[in-house]
Amino acid sequence: MKASEPPERVGLGQLGERGLIRRIRRSGVATGGAPGIEVGIGDDTAVITVPPGHRLLATTDLLIEDVHFRPSSASPADIGWKALAVNLSDIAAMGGIPRWALVALAVPVGTEVAAVDGFYAGMGEAAAPHGVTVVGGDTSASPSGWMVNVTLLGVHPGAARLRSHARPGDAVAVTGSLGASAAGLYALEMGPDRAHAAGLAAGPLAQIVATHLRPRARVAEGRWLGEATGVHAMMDCSDGLVADLEHICRESGVGARVRLDRVPVAAAALAAGRALGADARDWAVGGGEDYELLLTCEASAAERLASGLASATGTPLTIIGRIQGAAGSVVFVDADDEPVAVRSGYEHFHG
Amino acid sequence: MKASEPPERVGLGQLGERGLIRRIRRSGVATGGAPGIEVGIGDDTAVITVPPGHRLLATTDLLIEDVHFRPSSASPADIGWKALAVNLSDIAAMGGIPRWALVALAVPVGTEVAAVDGFYAGMGEAAAPHGVTVVGGDTSASPSGWMVNVTLLGVHPGAARLRSHARPGDAVAVTGSLGASAAGLYALEMGPDRAHAAGLAAGPLAQIVATHLRPRARVAEGRWLGEATGVHAMMDCSDGLVADLEHICRESGVGARVRLDRVPVAAAALAAGRALGADARDWAVGGGEDYELLLTCEASAAERLASGLASATGTPLTIIGRIQGAAGSVVFVDADDEPVAVRSGYEHFHG
Repeated sequence: MKASEPPERVGLGQLGERGLIRRIRRSGVATGGAPGIEVGIGDDTAVITVPPGHRLLATTDLLIEDVHFRPSSASPADIGWKALAVNLSDIAAMGGIPRWALVALAVPVGTEVAAVDGFYAGMGEAAAPHGVTVVGGDTSASPSGWMVNVTLLGVHPGAARLRSHARPGDAVAVTGSLGASAAGLYALEMGPDRAHAAGLAAGPLAQIVATHLRPRARVAEGRWLGEATGVHAMMDCSDGLVADLEHICRESGVGARVRLDRVPVAAAALAAGRALGADARDWAVGGGEDYELLLTCEASAAERLASGLASATGTPLTIIGRIQGAAGSVVFVDADDEPVAVRSGYEHFHG
Repeated sequence: MKASEPPERVGLGQLGERGLIRRIRRSGVATGGAPGIEVGIGDDTAVITVPPGHRLLATTDLLIEDVHFRPSSASPADIGWKALAVNLSDIAAMGGIPRWALVALAVPVGTEVAAVDGFYAGMGEAAAPHGVTVVGGDTSASPSGWMVNVTLLGVHPGAARLRSHARPGDAVAVTGSLGASAAGLYALEMGPDRAHAAGLAAGPLAQIVATHLRPRARVAEGRWLGEATGVHAMMDCSDGLVADLEHICRESGVGARVRLDRVPVAAAALAAGRALGADARDWAVGGGEDYELLLTCEASAAERLASGLASATGTPLTIIGRIQGAAGSVVFVDADDEPVAVRSGYEHFHG
């Protein structure tokens, strides 16, 4: 690197893999506050102490250019944020505490260092509120676009909340609201300017785009629900309400019946649906990537859990249905209890 | 999937992500013998119990088509094997015990299920001798070629061996022999048939190709050396002897002097060098990917460690130099103690 050259214009070819690792090692993302780190980035493996009496949680997620994001709409910082956030959500869904991350990043040889810095800065923004620290990783050249893999480790002081723990008679509930992420993707694909010109106000437009690009994992909510009595099954809503509830039913050997009119649709998604002539309810049940928590609980505990979660975290919990019916069947009904057809989620290997 | 269709001819599009996960879950790779697994594949995260008094080790490695392997020479099973083996080697280098793996795999939509089955079968072959079990992962479509990311978790009952623990006066030693992997890559790039026609016998040809495609991590050797007194710094030789010794020196704030004539060059690499008109010593010091262990130890303990390791594991340990000289300097010398120039290792972001 020449002294006269501003570092952000330097390509990775000049910096080299070692220079890149040095850069990551010094950045905030590798010096976060997670306890238990004996050895972080820089050796063959990270060396970690799991606190006594705690279970270890481990999850991994891939983000690939033109499959999971488009460089035209997602900045490197957005990619870094999301790559961590989707893993935070998995730990949250178990009721766990996120701690240590391993980050594998492959980028084209010509990528500027500023883009890679942006990626780690975005990841750092998502990690900092939870004290998550990057303890290891890998970097590589990529023959095509960006590819990111984050493995996140967490701990759990008690019993993890599983998908397989739903019981007949349980209430089905979901945190927050759904549909904003899919609405944001829709607006990004048509072009935010065109969406705005079509009558979608700047406020809801910004909100749905932010929900899609920078989802917020329900970590505090997962911790609270993970410790509350009466919660049975829990998972994060990443593939869409239909697909994820089907997961719970399949793993638990139960069925579910959901009142479509009770599904909480995000206000910004409703505004987008009205302006763009789309049905926001489709986004809410089929869209996915909202990273809300989907759970089943003792029916008698549902109201107590909803008010408790709201007062502890400010996040609403909405009861949308019940565990009943044939194993594996997920039926949506209207206010008159008549079955209605709904859109399902995203499938990676189907076109 | 139609009943009349043999399953191995089914494309991933027909099987779907869920079908693929079900397939992995039932395969040997996910039902291995690792203890401590409370929840494996199928929930938001794996749930694991780390044995009391043990540290957790965590490492991650990317393998990308046309960067780390070519589909013309590496079968899906080879890719699966190597993706795990390179991580096993990182755990071995700390003196640890490998246990639980998370596997992220992205393949083109048109990929046949048989190829993916082959990948997991190859990984299972590498995992089985060590009782390593796949506890989680992610699957995705890829817009270009195959991309694999494996995160391997292990445990350590004592103190991990670090790169930063070399001390002035230490002996520098390496397990096994070097150069076969780079020789194998050379033969694969020129074409095995051409290499054979040039006079390289089938035996050494098969050996160097196997070392490159299916490296064996020195797990038992790492465990033994990790517990032996007198061992200071240790790492795995993946980037090449020069680059990896530079790592140790930089992390430890020391220098090293290596006798080039004492570097153990694999017999098959020497045979390949003779037949193909290349210098096998270049492969041994600069090639990398042999996944031997490179260590420094008390000079007075070196002979004892070498004979102890040989009788415990059958693997030789060769003393090749000494920790001395200016911090960060790695000097190779000949039998007359005269400095000689050597080739350095591979750099991802340089051409």
